[in-house]
Amino acid sequence: MTSNSYTFALVGYGGMGKQHKKVLQTIDRAHIAGTFDINKQRQEDANNDGLHTYTSFNELVSDDSIDIVLIATPNDSHKDIAIDAMKAGKHVICEKPVTLNSKELEEILDAAKQYDKVFAVHQNRRWDEDYLVMKKLYDEGVLGDVFHVESRVHGSRGIPGDWRHEKAYGGGMLLDWGVHLLDRLVLLIPEKIKSIYCHLSYVLGNEVDDGFRMQVSFESGKTALVEVGTSNYISLPLWYMTGTNGAATIHDWSMNGKVVTVTKHEDHDATPIEAGAGLTKTMAPRGELSTQDTPLPRIKTDIRDFYDNVMKVIEGKEDPIVKNEEVMRIMKLMEAAFLSHKTNSVIDFE
Amino acid sequence: MTSNSYTFALVGYGGMGKQHKKVLQTIDRAHIAGTFDINKQRQEDANNDGLHTYTSFNELVSDDSIDIVLIATPNDSHKDIAIDAMKAGKHVICEKPVTLNSKELEEILDAAKQYDKVFAVHQNRRWDEDYLVMKKLYDEGVLGDVFHVESRVHGSRGIPGDWRHEKAYGGGMLLDWGVHLLDRLVLLIPEKIKSIYCHLSYVLGNEVDDGFRMQVSFESGKTALVEVGTSNYISLPLWYMTGTNGAATIHDWSMNGKVVTVTKHEDHDATPIEAGAGLTKTMAPRGELSTQDTPLPRIKTDIRDFYDNVMKVIEGKEDPIVKNEEVMRIMKLMEAAFLSHKTNSVIDFE
Repeated sequence: MTSNSYTFALVGYGGMGKQHKKVLQTIDRAHIAGTFDINKQRQEDANNDGLHTYTSFNELVSDDSIDIVLIATPNDSHKDIAIDAMKAGKHVICEKPVTLNSKELEEILDAAKQYDKVFAVHQNRRWDEDYLVMKKLYDEGVLGDVFHVESRVHGSRGIPGDWRHEKAYGGGMLLDWGVHLLDRLVLLIPEKIKSIYCHLSYVLGNEVDDGFRMQVSFESGKTALVEVGTSNYISLPLWYMTGTNGAATIHDWSMNGKVVTVTKHEDHDATPIEAGAGLTKTMAPRGELSTQDTPLPRIKTDIRDFYDNVMKVIEGKEDPIVKNEEVMRIMKLMEAAFLSHKTNSVIDFE
Repeated sequence: MTSNSYTFALVGYGGMGKQHKKVLQTIDRAHIAGTFDINKQRQEDANNDGLHTYTSFNELVSDDSIDIVLIATPNDSHKDIAIDAMKAGKHVICEKPVTLNSKELEEILDAAKQYDKVFAVHQNRRWDEDYLVMKKLYDEGVLGDVFHVESRVHGSRGIPGDWRHEKAYGGGMLLDWGVHLLDRLVLLIPEKIKSIYCHLSYVLGNEVDDGFRMQVSFESGKTALVEVGTSNYISLPLWYMTGTNGAATIHDWSMNGKVVTVTKHEDHDATPIEAGAGLTKTMAPRGELSTQDTPLPRIKTDIRDFYDNVMKVIEGKEDPIVKNEEVMRIMKLMEAAFLSHKTNSVIDFE
């Protein structure tokens, strides 16, 4: 570290390692010393991308110029790499899910305390615009009292990559995408969680879950549905949020969606509509006379703020944005979800 | 009853009573003798609609010309009216939910046996085109092995009418709309139900539920989500069904929606998409190279087939389309749903 710049090393140069490299190269005070990956092809990829490659993890952590080790390896290996890096005097940024269970995370956090190092988890999807827009609508009370939120991702390509198919590596979609959706949900609704019920799907016949559907009940009575699907040839919206004065939906990452707010709760002009083999007034859509459609607000967001925050945490200038107690809570929530599926029961959480 | 025509009387002349009158008047061999409603205004409505009105229920059931009594009163009154009508020698068609619990339905079915009368519940939404289209897609295996179905209705006008707000009358949306959605779901997926988890909503502060969300697990592992909402200013689709070879959705009663089927499971050309603050290949939409969009099939449906079937059941010429054991099963399923909400637990069902 020279003056206020930081030197990073990447452990693991797969999809996420390459993504970190791309972002770090746009941050003025971040410098990449090099990478190490146990896979030869990926070492070559790194060389082709103009990066120095270390011949071993030990060589990497022995490099005194390195301030921050960035871990982007399969999930089961995070713990040992993180602890060894901190023991060698490095701060650590780690991919998510940070570990396979809360006990392993506890070991990492103990090590961070013991070696007095910053340990930060790359919960990058807190910087997704779709999430930030829903949070803004929630925080500003645009929809009145929000009583239900749905957060989902639907794909149709199955479980990605190689190791994500295997339990030993910490595969499965609850750990892979669930960790993001749950992390954001509890930031959106900052309340104790009363209980959860989770059903994992095994449509594709893998040994790990290829998706899940989870009902969450908060202390105040608010509810949420969190869902991941990888065999869904039609995608339901990323977000659906409904309150006493309106609703909002975001269909996709192109930010298609809308906000509908009520202008007049009473709607005496309602006339029943033909609905299949019956009439319904209850379910008749409202018109312009009592509701208003507005486009979604837009929010500028920059994932580089995450790396910047980590550097400022190291300097003692900022509190971490991604707090380790938040990461621990989500680990425990995912453990509760696995238990809920295994026992087909509602799990009391907090 | 002269030759093959049947004489009906309507007990209750609110929204559904008027609807029955409208349909019966288009059926050649159905004749309406008259109506009785305890509400004076509705007696006047009936007179204004050209119907004879009886001065009491007793007078109505004493009319020997009447073959079939059609009950469209608040839910709590169905049982006594049905039993009294059958005791007086009439066949009965009854609105749904038939009773407030399975014990009351048992009493009705005992009476039907004792007096040897036909008792039929007007599960009219089995004739909704949206349901029949999903059933056709399911039965023909268009989507491959279906593993999840969602059936919902979303409105934003709260609980309708007057008595539907009160528990004593059998109000609430689980009994009102839930009875339809569950009835159709178990016909769509003809399997034992392993368990259910149901959360009732009380957004509007009524003493009865203004909606619910229910996860259903079937014996084979298939799942369903059944939902009713009355404070939803944006409506999610009426139907969403997903299988190993495709998905189908119906947005509304105008039959907007589509079927997407996979033409090539492998999709090696997939490239990651920018998704918020990260990339995703897993959730990247598929294109024309590996999926095919087709419009929903359309089905002609006629609710008069229900009344016709009841008359043919009376004549011993057909089995009932709406079987009383099916109605009983749904009553028990709704009882399980109320219990699930009350205890916030998963209820084993069959």
